[in-house]
Amino acid sequence: MSQDAETPAQIHLPSGFSFSSVAAGIKVSGRKDLALVECAPGTRAAAMFTRNRVVAAPVEVGREALKSSRGRVRAVIVNSGNANCATGKDGLRGCRKVCSEMAKLLGARADEIFPSSTGIIGVPFPAETITGKLGHLVGGQHASEEAARSFAQTIMTTDTRVKMASAVFQTRKGKVKLLGIAKGSGMIHPKLATMLVYLLTDLEAEPARMKQLLLETCDQTFNCISVDGDTSTNDTVLLLSSGQSGVRITDAGVGQSFRESLGEICSSLAYQIVSDGEGVQHVIELHIEQAKNRDEAMQVARAIAHSPLVKTAWAGADPNWGRILAAVGNSGIPIDAARVNIYIGDQLVCLHGSSHAFDESRAHAHLARQECQVRVEVGRGRHGVRFWTTDLSAEYVRINADYST
Amino acid sequence: MSQDAETPAQIHLPSGFSFSSVAAGIKVSGRKDLALVECAPGTRAAAMFTRNRVVAAPVEVGREALKSSRGRVRAVIVNSGNANCATGKDGLRGCRKVCSEMAKLLGARADEIFPSSTGIIGVPFPAETITGKLGHLVGGQHASEEAARSFAQTIMTTDTRVKMASAVFQTRKGKVKLLGIAKGSGMIHPKLATMLVYLLTDLEAEPARMKQLLLETCDQTFNCISVDGDTSTNDTVLLLSSGQSGVRITDAGVGQSFRESLGEICSSLAYQIVSDGEGVQHVIELHIEQAKNRDEAMQVARAIAHSPLVKTAWAGADPNWGRILAAVGNSGIPIDAARVNIYIGDQLVCLHGSSHAFDESRAHAHLARQECQVRVEVGRGRHGVRFWTTDLSAEYVRINADYST
Repeated sequence: MSQDAETPAQIHLPSGFSFSSVAAGIKVSGRKDLALVECAPGTRAAAMFTRNRVVAAPVEVGREALKSSRGRVRAVIVNSGNANCATGKDGLRGCRKVCSEMAKLLGARADEIFPSSTGIIGVPFPAETITGKLGHLVGGQHASEEAARSFAQTIMTTDTRVKMASAVFQTRKGKVKLLGIAKGSGMIHPKLATMLVYLLTDLEAEPARMKQLLLETCDQTFNCISVDGDTSTNDTVLLLSSGQSGVRITDAGVGQSFRESLGEICSSLAYQIVSDGEGVQHVIELHIEQAKNRDEAMQVARAIAHSPLVKTAWAGADPNWGRILAAVGNSGIPIDAARVNIYIGDQLVCLHGSSHAFDESRAHAHLARQECQVRVEVGRGRHGVRFWTTDLSAEYVRINADYST
Repeated sequence: MSQDAETPAQIHLPSGFSFSSVAAGIKVSGRKDLALVECAPGTRAAAMFTRNRVVAAPVEVGREALKSSRGRVRAVIVNSGNANCATGKDGLRGCRKVCSEMAKLLGARADEIFPSSTGIIGVPFPAETITGKLGHLVGGQHASEEAARSFAQTIMTTDTRVKMASAVFQTRKGKVKLLGIAKGSGMIHPKLATMLVYLLTDLEAEPARMKQLLLETCDQTFNCISVDGDTSTNDTVLLLSSGQSGVRITDAGVGQSFRESLGEICSSLAYQIVSDGEGVQHVIELHIEQAKNRDEAMQVARAIAHSPLVKTAWAGADPNWGRILAAVGNSGIPIDAARVNIYIGDQLVCLHGSSHAFDESRAHAHLARQECQVRVEVGRGRHGVRFWTTDLSAEYVRINADYST
């Protein structure tokens, strides 16, 4: 695990995007809570949304907009402080109002405005408050690193760090740049539970190809992390290609380079999200191996990552492999316990489903680190998965049990 | 919810059972850790075991024994302090040794001895320590309330209370008595995670009929509770019928009366298990209604009961219905959020998936009680389930994060 959880020192800003953010008065703290990415004409998009059956209004509106505009996006408008979820028809109406007002200001079509919201569930969406500030937003956008960073700050809720990652690669026709900006809820504050990810590039690409790449990349990165097993109602990953680099994804060798850079950025953002949890003391890199297929490996990884008994043992740096074995047995996969091996750090601690002599103090010391590795061989096949998760600390409970309604 | 979490003042002791318990030296504390129920000749049994794929040695041995003896049981031998799980072939050998030695002492067949273990996973099973004490056990059994209570105490691990329930019903041929004894892990101690339940009756019944009744009853009681979603490797529910009352289950009206009494006892024990968790501040009685079928209702109940965000909100007595709604959306059931209603206590807090005005301080006060009610209507059909679960407290994390290996 060599991810850099810090924001990169240097940002590669793709051409065709400018950023703006204001304090609209949605957050009681008075912090910035409304942000805009304006995209050059011709920008195309692909998106992935939460699989929760309860979805927020912006998820519904954004999905429709991409369909109706055939993937054309002229702006992304994001508010923090209110999730616009469980807000009924008023919430949908408010979200559409924000998009249409923003469209007027930019001379675009309403379905070219992509909305996101993150914050409290079940509180009426303050559409008027937001539309009253759109003029300020549109006046203030800049294509600068500072403006991008301010955008990243504005969409934060309980995040303690700005989450950005960027990459650049050279082609025969010139450079292609990628910038990823995320907010996420490692551990989650009362009623705030959303991962928003914006991936910007100046490559030229068709929405269908972008969607395929985004699917593959999410599957390897954002779908391989779990803090508490709760899937938000607002999760959104949006990929935007401005085409301003003059490089096309269909040019020789470009597709592969882009795929790699996109994977790198998403992997970094995924790690940043997991490691920025309030209450998180340890990031656990789980390696599930010898599964029959990838889905099976994922199912075992999730069973371990969602077991309160395993996660609380990790909080105490306890090399308690019995709980891991029991979680594997509970995964729903018909495993044979006598074929399961478990490693903590570089030590084998459970061989063929039974105790294997190991240096407990060394295993304890490994689990006391900020980054830990746990490997499980399930003895059924040749497929595996890498999965990042966290411990479950008393601090997490304190944060989330805080009575706040 | 009118369950009495306290042990009943009066125990109805069914004829044909005697109890004995000793300190064999398995528990470091020096407390009693080895216990016996001797059953009258002719006693028949039915059992249910954990669905975890990783099973402890006594589960394997007990299952085989019931099959080979066709449900005949002459004794139950239980140890606490060691789960005999993840102990490989030595663990199986040790368990069989204990059964065969006990059989010799009682003049029974080895497959008429039913073994159980509860305690630490992955620590070698101390078979010699146990066989050395069997003689003391066999010398000391009594058919008394005191001996039954001592048995219940001996099988405890982190339980803070003895768990017993009993019932009696009148038939034309005389009285039938039932006694249930359980140990369970409301919240679970490091590496201890087992529910053991022994249901004794002096009714005369065939194993096949007993098995059917046990299945139905478990489905309505022990399968409708969850503390932390982790299923133990040792869970066992054993029903024993001595036939000593002279009343047969096939006698007119007896089957129905027995079914009701069994349900009553199991319901009481299930509630005692949930409410006796270390760290448990609140028992939540979930009512899931308007599901298409019972399985669907169970799936929604489990999604809510296993959500860390929901459980931590309950720890803070926070009437945060948004988290409950999001958990319902995450259940895997294709619910329509616009048809979901949520009640906390007697108040409607979410109507048609949106916020509904309610008295927050009253909802908070309700959730601050030791026993709380949450009702969710999912708007899909006419089936429902009652499910008991708990909050997730910082105390639970502290207990389970305690480094102890």
